[in-house]
Amino acid sequence: MSNPNPVPPKSGRLLLIPNTLDFGCVGGGEPHDASLPAPLPDLRESLPLGAITAAAGLRHWIAENAKTTRAFLKRVADIVPLSTPLQEQDIQVLPRPPKGGHKPSSQDESRQIAALLAPALAGHDVGLISEAGLPGVADPGAAVVLAAHQAGIPVLPLSGPSSLVLALAASGLHGQSFAFVGYLPVNAQERAQRIRELEQASRKGRQTQLVIETPYRNTALWQALLQHLQGNTLLSASCGLTLPQGWSRTDTVARWRQHPLTLPDDIPTVFSWLAF
Amino acid sequence: MSNPNPVPPKSGRLLLIPNTLDFGCVGGGEPHDASLPAPLPDLRESLPLGAITAAAGLRHWIAENAKTTRAFLKRVADIVPLSTPLQEQDIQVLPRPPKGGHKPSSQDESRQIAALLAPALAGHDVGLISEAGLPGVADPGAAVVLAAHQAGIPVLPLSGPSSLVLALAASGLHGQSFAFVGYLPVNAQERAQRIRELEQASRKGRQTQLVIETPYRNTALWQALLQHLQGNTLLSASCGLTLPQGWSRTDTVARWRQHPLTLPDDIPTVFSWLAF
Repeated sequence: MSNPNPVPPKSGRLLLIPNTLDFGCVGGGEPHDASLPAPLPDLRESLPLGAITAAAGLRHWIAENAKTTRAFLKRVADIVPLSTPLQEQDIQVLPRPPKGGHKPSSQDESRQIAALLAPALAGHDVGLISEAGLPGVADPGAAVVLAAHQAGIPVLPLSGPSSLVLALAASGLHGQSFAFVGYLPVNAQERAQRIRELEQASRKGRQTQLVIETPYRNTALWQALLQHLQGNTLLSASCGLTLPQGWSRTDTVARWRQHPLTLPDDIPTVFSWLAF
Repeated sequence: MSNPNPVPPKSGRLLLIPNTLDFGCVGGGEPHDASLPAPLPDLRESLPLGAITAAAGLRHWIAENAKTTRAFLKRVADIVPLSTPLQEQDIQVLPRPPKGGHKPSSQDESRQIAALLAPALAGHDVGLISEAGLPGVADPGAAVVLAAHQAGIPVLPLSGPSSLVLALAASGLHGQSFAFVGYLPVNAQERAQRIRELEQASRKGRQTQLVIETPYRNTALWQALLQHLQGNTLLSASCGLTLPQGWSRTDTVARWRQHPLTLPDDIPTVFSWLAF
């Protein structure tokens, strides 16, 4: 097995560091305040020691948010001593991605992103981290990873929790073919049309469809799904997975109409369905 | 937040236990032989201690394979003592799923699967485990999870490595919309047509497409992708992720045609692309 692409001499690697899924869900909805006793669960509950140890060894970071990355590093330090003290960590913040998803970046964005990778080109390992889960999966960071490939910097993804894949496993729906399509339109009419389109795609391709929603719209989305999906479609909600209060439920749309489900308005939820 | 579906009195839970991704890749291509010194990496490299501890506390299992589940439990016992000795563990094996994916089970299959859940209905937690990664994701097990939901048994997915989501993160391709479509047809003509269809779907929906292949066909699939995808499509291969020798590379099809990539014929690889 070989990776024939030339690696720049002395290049460091881009490590994709997983984060927990408890962002904003523990400690009163605010990121961990370092001045208070830690109310957050032990990182080892949902992250492998391998990823925690790798994070503890880094000094250079590219992050969705610097404050929450420092909070993450404090949790890391509770388990494995940091090789570089917190106050000497070099944390650069990702530019906000353009709305509407992936597209070839403008020259300005490309330059910004290439600059973030300078420590890797200088021979240092760099960690990429988002506020929850794996960077680049339903989260910013993909443009940095692509730029690393283009520069010949090795990319090393480390295992961690992904709300999408946990929700898929917990749904009991088809896991041999599935699609994550992000958010649905907010406009009621467009949303109804999109739900019907995705139901048809699910039936035709025997493909589980997964979507997420801003938590305060969870109930509105659920009502729209119950209204527009067909009765025999299997519909699943997975709420706060990896949290102590997390749960996952799957039933037919017809049965959900008879047995209403109460969804929280402040906990991330993944919705999925499979049509027949 | 509430889960209004009635839980059977005294019901145990169905715990989805993640496995490592090193199945068949370490120790000469054979599952871990318990009579030899363990050549396998420490489970904590890629599994959270939370999942390892949960596994150590179980006695009842539904497994893709009993032998590899025992090998997994030996690795667990190296870290956390098992609450039930290995020889007293109750390991039931999943019926082979019907070819061609998810469909409403036959009555016979439904009865078989309901029987597997009897320990949960009697009040015991039951672990569901596959040979690699999360059960039910590109792997058997979804039918058991669905049966648990139908019986009102709580389902608890535990965080662990998923080759698909690691490959997606490592690809640098669009992670806000992606589809995993399983295996492509083996027949060359059908495969070419499917590749073109999936490229069009990627372009139209701005959606990363992911596929897997039986390792000995990795090179054949790669050649077919280079032949049938368009030159400006981004194409990624992620090989043996979480293994020491794992790597991930992304480039345009045009550049891959100029700089050939050597793929192993014995290591699981995830292929993905994004068309513009």
